[in-house]
Amino acid sequence: MSGKVILNLAISLDGYIADENGGYDWIIGHGNHCLDTENQYPFSDFKDSIDIVVMGHTCYLQGFASDYTKKKVYVASNSMQEDTENIEFIRGDIISIIIKERDAGKTIYLFGGGILIDPFVKANVIDEYMISIIPTILGKGIPLFLGNNPTIALSLNKYSIEDGIIHLFYSKK
Amino acid sequence: MSGKVILNLAISLDGYIADENGGYDWIIGHGNHCLDTENQYPFSDFKDSIDIVVMGHTCYLQGFASDYTKKKVYVASNSMQEDTENIEFIRGDIISIIIKERDAGKTIYLFGGGILIDPFVKANVIDEYMISIIPTILGKGIPLFLGNNPTIALSLNKYSIEDGIIHLFYSKK
Repeated sequence: MSGKVILNLAISLDGYIADENGGYDWIIGHGNHCLDTENQYPFSDFKDSIDIVVMGHTCYLQGFASDYTKKKVYVASNSMQEDTENIEFIRGDIISIIIKERDAGKTIYLFGGGILIDPFVKANVIDEYMISIIPTILGKGIPLFLGNNPTIALSLNKYSIEDGIIHLFYSKK
Repeated sequence: MSGKVILNLAISLDGYIADENGGYDWIIGHGNHCLDTENQYPFSDFKDSIDIVVMGHTCYLQGFASDYTKKKVYVASNSMQEDTENIEFIRGDIISIIIKERDAGKTIYLFGGGILIDPFVKANVIDEYMISIIPTILGKGIPLFLGNNPTIALSLNKYSIEDGIIHLFYSKK
């Protein structure tokens, strides 16, 4: 059974994943729970469901790998570092490695950031797009989609709302 | 009582309002109604609710003004044309005119396209953002948000889903 590659992150309404300085302090709700849906899909459940995390070097330097000590973590990095028990640094073609893991049945969480994600979008190897839309026009920052991508038709499979943040769960058609 | 300026349009998940050739044939649902919400907000109701439509010259040339023969229509255009009974061509500062109409209590529909909308976002005079997200990564095209905008905090007030298209109704906080 084939696994899958899942992108899961939050964007502003204008499509940014981080501000110009890489900051995330704008990732907040609109301040009330009037519109919350009955169904919620806690991030902890998602985290439990995945086998492998892939992140870029900047995210690694920001300390995000420490949230996944019980998962295999691949870090895309041009500056090689010594691997640890669960972290492997990859220079060069990370997509082939992830495709092999997927074909071996693994569920892979494509963590970010934007530079890591871009070639995965362009190679059209992302099976599920879990996108949370923050109720903010950020104005400027680091975009999720860098442009010049293939057209990819999606199905919206489920959604939830919490504090004005809408979580949209798409899969590739 | 002050009126309001409403942006209402559809974007792809990657933020485009039209393809590279200005085409819209990708603006379709995902092909089933499993996730449709009970509440729907027909576009015809929205259309009835507005007093004034503002569009750019390209949208005018595409014939969109003919859908609004009973409304006042402003067309932002550098190539002046003769006004008709309901259509007025505006060269130059259209924002001041729209602000005056808004302050006179009018409900104004900011139709598009992107070039018209951009200065309205930058001047932060849009009161409501009604954004429909098409279940497609278009890949390339004409973006809604051109970047270098102010940060604008929003509230998500309501939503509906039809055929995998999610309609999000935001207002400025």
